[in-house]
Amino acid sequence: MNTASRSAVSEIASAIGSPSELWRVRARAHLDVLTKPLGSLGMLEDISAQMVSIRQEEFAEPLRKAVYVFAADHGITSEGVSAYPSEVTRQMVLNFLAQGAAINVLAKLHHVEMNVVDVGVDADFDAADRMLNYKVRRGTRNMLREAAMSDAELTQAIEVGLKLAVEAKSQGKNLLAVGEMGIGNTTASSAITSILTDKPVALVTGIGAGLDAAAQAHKRRIIETVVRKHFAGLGGISVVDPLEVLRCVGGLEIAAMTGMILGAAGNGIAVVADGFISTTAAAIAFAIEPRVRGYLFAGHQSEEPGHRVLLEYIGLKPILTLNMRLGEGTGAVLAMPIIESAMHLYNEMATFTSAGVSEAKK
Amino acid sequence: MNTASRSAVSEIASAIGSPSELWRVRARAHLDVLTKPLGSLGMLEDISAQMVSIRQEEFAEPLRKAVYVFAADHGITSEGVSAYPSEVTRQMVLNFLAQGAAINVLAKLHHVEMNVVDVGVDADFDAADRMLNYKVRRGTRNMLREAAMSDAELTQAIEVGLKLAVEAKSQGKNLLAVGEMGIGNTTASSAITSILTDKPVALVTGIGAGLDAAAQAHKRRIIETVVRKHFAGLGGISVVDPLEVLRCVGGLEIAAMTGMILGAAGNGIAVVADGFISTTAAAIAFAIEPRVRGYLFAGHQSEEPGHRVLLEYIGLKPILTLNMRLGEGTGAVLAMPIIESAMHLYNEMATFTSAGVSEAKK
Repeated sequence: MNTASRSAVSEIASAIGSPSELWRVRARAHLDVLTKPLGSLGMLEDISAQMVSIRQEEFAEPLRKAVYVFAADHGITSEGVSAYPSEVTRQMVLNFLAQGAAINVLAKLHHVEMNVVDVGVDADFDAADRMLNYKVRRGTRNMLREAAMSDAELTQAIEVGLKLAVEAKSQGKNLLAVGEMGIGNTTASSAITSILTDKPVALVTGIGAGLDAAAQAHKRRIIETVVRKHFAGLGGISVVDPLEVLRCVGGLEIAAMTGMILGAAGNGIAVVADGFISTTAAAIAFAIEPRVRGYLFAGHQSEEPGHRVLLEYIGLKPILTLNMRLGEGTGAVLAMPIIESAMHLYNEMATFTSAGVSEAKK
Repeated sequence: MNTASRSAVSEIASAIGSPSELWRVRARAHLDVLTKPLGSLGMLEDISAQMVSIRQEEFAEPLRKAVYVFAADHGITSEGVSAYPSEVTRQMVLNFLAQGAAINVLAKLHHVEMNVVDVGVDADFDAADRMLNYKVRRGTRNMLREAAMSDAELTQAIEVGLKLAVEAKSQGKNLLAVGEMGIGNTTASSAITSILTDKPVALVTGIGAGLDAAAQAHKRRIIETVVRKHFAGLGGISVVDPLEVLRCVGGLEIAAMTGMILGAAGNGIAVVADGFISTTAAAIAFAIEPRVRGYLFAGHQSEEPGHRVLLEYIGLKPILTLNMRLGEGTGAVLAMPIIESAMHLYNEMATFTSAGVSEAKK
């Protein structure tokens, strides 16, 4: 990665502060006087305390929720790593625009603004299509042969996410979800996960959109070769530059999500990761600057084996575990009513004093 | 239990049919042509298939959701088994009516009709209080000395729930949640769970609303004495009459919830169990008639150790696991947006054909 782009990302990362510990303590004190046994709302209390510590204010404003679905293609698909042909990326983007995909249904039901971002689909769309056009390149290069992106492409993709996070802030959005669509992107995610967490490829490679055992074994061998090609001889996490990992074996949508997560944290906005691929972006952002963790929620834990490894690596507990493996931001948006519930409870419940309810015996 | 009440419950139970296997198969076939990898919506697909098999129709009608919070006191509280004084049952009922409790906040946010049912609170309420008045008795008897209820009281409490389920059906409600408030009711639930599942009391007794270790040990000893007193010499599940267990060591709200669950199943309505106490009612209903399982959802898994044992006993997988232990129906209502999401996805997603998306390679 060249010095210019490195310093741009460093600048963003260094602007990220921790969520307020003072506000977290205040939030905990408030939760303890609400009419319920101490701590009995469990993870909902953790969620509302985290939201208060991020926002550094009581919940005066309602949540303004948005999901960003970043779409891009992957050169590695020519090696036969996916159950679906790569044209499906384009087809699913059109399905998003026609409101027919799972994420459309969930976003509509839970009042979440839906944004489709083309950051690298291998197709041309109509100018009339209502999407955000930030195509960096028609898909990544085949990482079995060369780095997936050039320095300039990586920087450009990260900046798409950064820019959208800044815009979200200026639009008053205060809860973002990152999702993706990209045939081949579990292959990139498994490669990144293996390198970042120093775990064997076999442990972090799953069936993606639905491979049989033989095809999964082939995918694993391809990823092992990719990892060896770009990072042979490197041992352990400490020596790996996360941006270089992203550049060599990542994807344009993963880079854009990394940018959005860094940008959200830098602007004090909470962001919900979805499944394996978006959590890969979160892990890269966390590797660049560990303070991003304070702004992150894990919407769910997917069926992809690498997802659990990444959640442990970052130190996130998933809100939902529903055996999903769809992506698109579906698990993140599905967690939003839970986050919203936590905030409404925090704001609207009576206190022991106001309701005249006796507290626990001492 | 006398013959009259036994036969009334038997009649209800025998009217319960299984959800339609034909409709479940149809639902699975529909799910498989939606624009997503096969099975990738995980438990959401199980939920929507179950709802279709219960309703035996495509999802033409929107969900009409209601929660019933059954409140009652427990004679066993005079033995010091709870962290809170028994007056809190009455105080929390008033808090429900004033919209200040956690369940009020969640029901309002998720558009769930909220009903408070006095089935046995040890207090008199104002006629102006907007609740359903079905008080059977001002709290159960102290089960350390005698059976918690008489035959007649048990029958009356069960019939409250049955009646409300029939009314819910006639009002077009199609998704019910059962919740409760009753200081002392984890003690009754642990006793029932131990007898029903043949597990040691120590394994199924928790901290309730918040006991310290010494108080929890005291609670456990009380429950062990109660179980020995009423069911000494009985070995194994098969010889235990679930209604007799409910009568001797149960609670009026647990009996009413049992009635509502039997009534919901008998009327083809889905019902969401909440935490340990409402799942105890579900377990009694299941022990009476195993076909009720087909109508049940487990909203969440609570922190009470007996809850997991009961979910396994019935064979239910919890939708949420958020370390909650509050009751009131909170975990059940919190699962409703997930159930609703599953149904909207089933109804609104495009198919591969309609969206022009390629299917997986064969």
